[in-house]
Amino acid sequence: MTYCCALRLKDGLVFVSDTRTNAGVDHISVFRKLYTFGVQGERFITIQTSGNLATTQAVIGHLNNHLELKQEPNLYSVNTMFEMAELIGQTLRKVIADVTTDINEHSNYYCSLLLGGQIQGADMQLYNIYPQGNCINATEDTPYFQIGESKYGKPILDRALGYEMPLDEAVRCCLISFDSTLRSNVSVGMPLDMLIYKKDSLDIPHGKRIYQEDPYFRQLSKQWSDILRRGLQSLPIPTDDYLE
Amino acid sequence: MTYCCALRLKDGLVFVSDTRTNAGVDHISVFRKLYTFGVQGERFITIQTSGNLATTQAVIGHLNNHLELKQEPNLYSVNTMFEMAELIGQTLRKVIADVTTDINEHSNYYCSLLLGGQIQGADMQLYNIYPQGNCINATEDTPYFQIGESKYGKPILDRALGYEMPLDEAVRCCLISFDSTLRSNVSVGMPLDMLIYKKDSLDIPHGKRIYQEDPYFRQLSKQWSDILRRGLQSLPIPTDDYLE
Repeated sequence: MTYCCALRLKDGLVFVSDTRTNAGVDHISVFRKLYTFGVQGERFITIQTSGNLATTQAVIGHLNNHLELKQEPNLYSVNTMFEMAELIGQTLRKVIADVTTDINEHSNYYCSLLLGGQIQGADMQLYNIYPQGNCINATEDTPYFQIGESKYGKPILDRALGYEMPLDEAVRCCLISFDSTLRSNVSVGMPLDMLIYKKDSLDIPHGKRIYQEDPYFRQLSKQWSDILRRGLQSLPIPTDDYLE
Repeated sequence: MTYCCALRLKDGLVFVSDTRTNAGVDHISVFRKLYTFGVQGERFITIQTSGNLATTQAVIGHLNNHLELKQEPNLYSVNTMFEMAELIGQTLRKVIADVTTDINEHSNYYCSLLLGGQIQGADMQLYNIYPQGNCINATEDTPYFQIGESKYGKPILDRALGYEMPLDEAVRCCLISFDSTLRSNVSVGMPLDMLIYKKDSLDIPHGKRIYQEDPYFRQLSKQWSDILRRGLQSLPIPTDDYLE
């Protein structure tokens, strides 16, 4: 499985992906699921992928190929983030149609993608692109998307995250969401790829790969366990009618 | 959907179930999924159910019917909790076989059950009974089981719960697990049914139904949100290499 999460907040975009792929529990590998593109000062693009690895790599392969051969339309020639989401959706549909013409077989090759970025002169955008190639757009009401093994890490996002949250706090919230998922499900695994984009910078950030032994991530994880345990103990004791 | 959770700890058993059933989002009902049986001073039994409502009600119906008509074997005549888990598993298999003889159709009628209890002179036991009628037993290493929509509420159990935890703290942990699930998934809904059994009491507790407006549960939920938000803010700020 996979867990990818992306936030579109007032001050910027945050992306975190795990790197574990598995075909059965005895066939586990590390593959990058977070891809960055862009033209310094003009556009910044991040794509995260979940699902059939051959499909996701073919989608990224076609997008890269179009850029290399300067074939239109491509990620750098489209006018808006919406057109980019449509282009990726069409590429995905084509990749699946290439593998099978039997529509009942399509779900075997499904993948989901998150697309976030900004083009000069326009707002930042974040899209969730479905296996069918259509998509939805993040809003101030729902400033995050998840793909893959999303349930374990959803409660902390639902309870704590908001559009106005500063980026450094949102990063902590997102990493806790990952730590919770990593602890409860072995199909999601380290290292993590993380990338933070500051609004209107039109900069292509390096991003950070977070390994198992990363001191900051380990500290976060340990401290969070302490916060939860102490928090539980600080909650009011159940009234007698609860314990009867 | 459903969310049921049961703990087998040093000092006793804790059971919590939601009550929402749905056949589509426009057909939502309240049904009890936590059933108590027992003979004061001799045995205490709780069964929680998840899955096809007709199947779960038929299983409970057959178990009750056997008790009423004093047909053997029944919940009060079996010698051990293990025999009881086997009896319930056989009842479940029979209920499904009654509906369809086509094994490919079985999964349409699946249900899962948790069985917890104690018989005089023996230890408390907690079983997770699978749709196929076989079962596993909780241990000190893994002192809890969940059935239904379990993922949202698993991280807090994995991080905080332990076999030695006092019952009043375990109750808080379990209710937080439910609160997290209720917030992230509308297919799990209030009221909740909760029951706490104290080891060796061989008492049949009343249990408690927790409604939406329950002051203790509301306080817990609000305070937990504050704990998480303050906790996030108290975590160390990401180092510079995280934010590049």
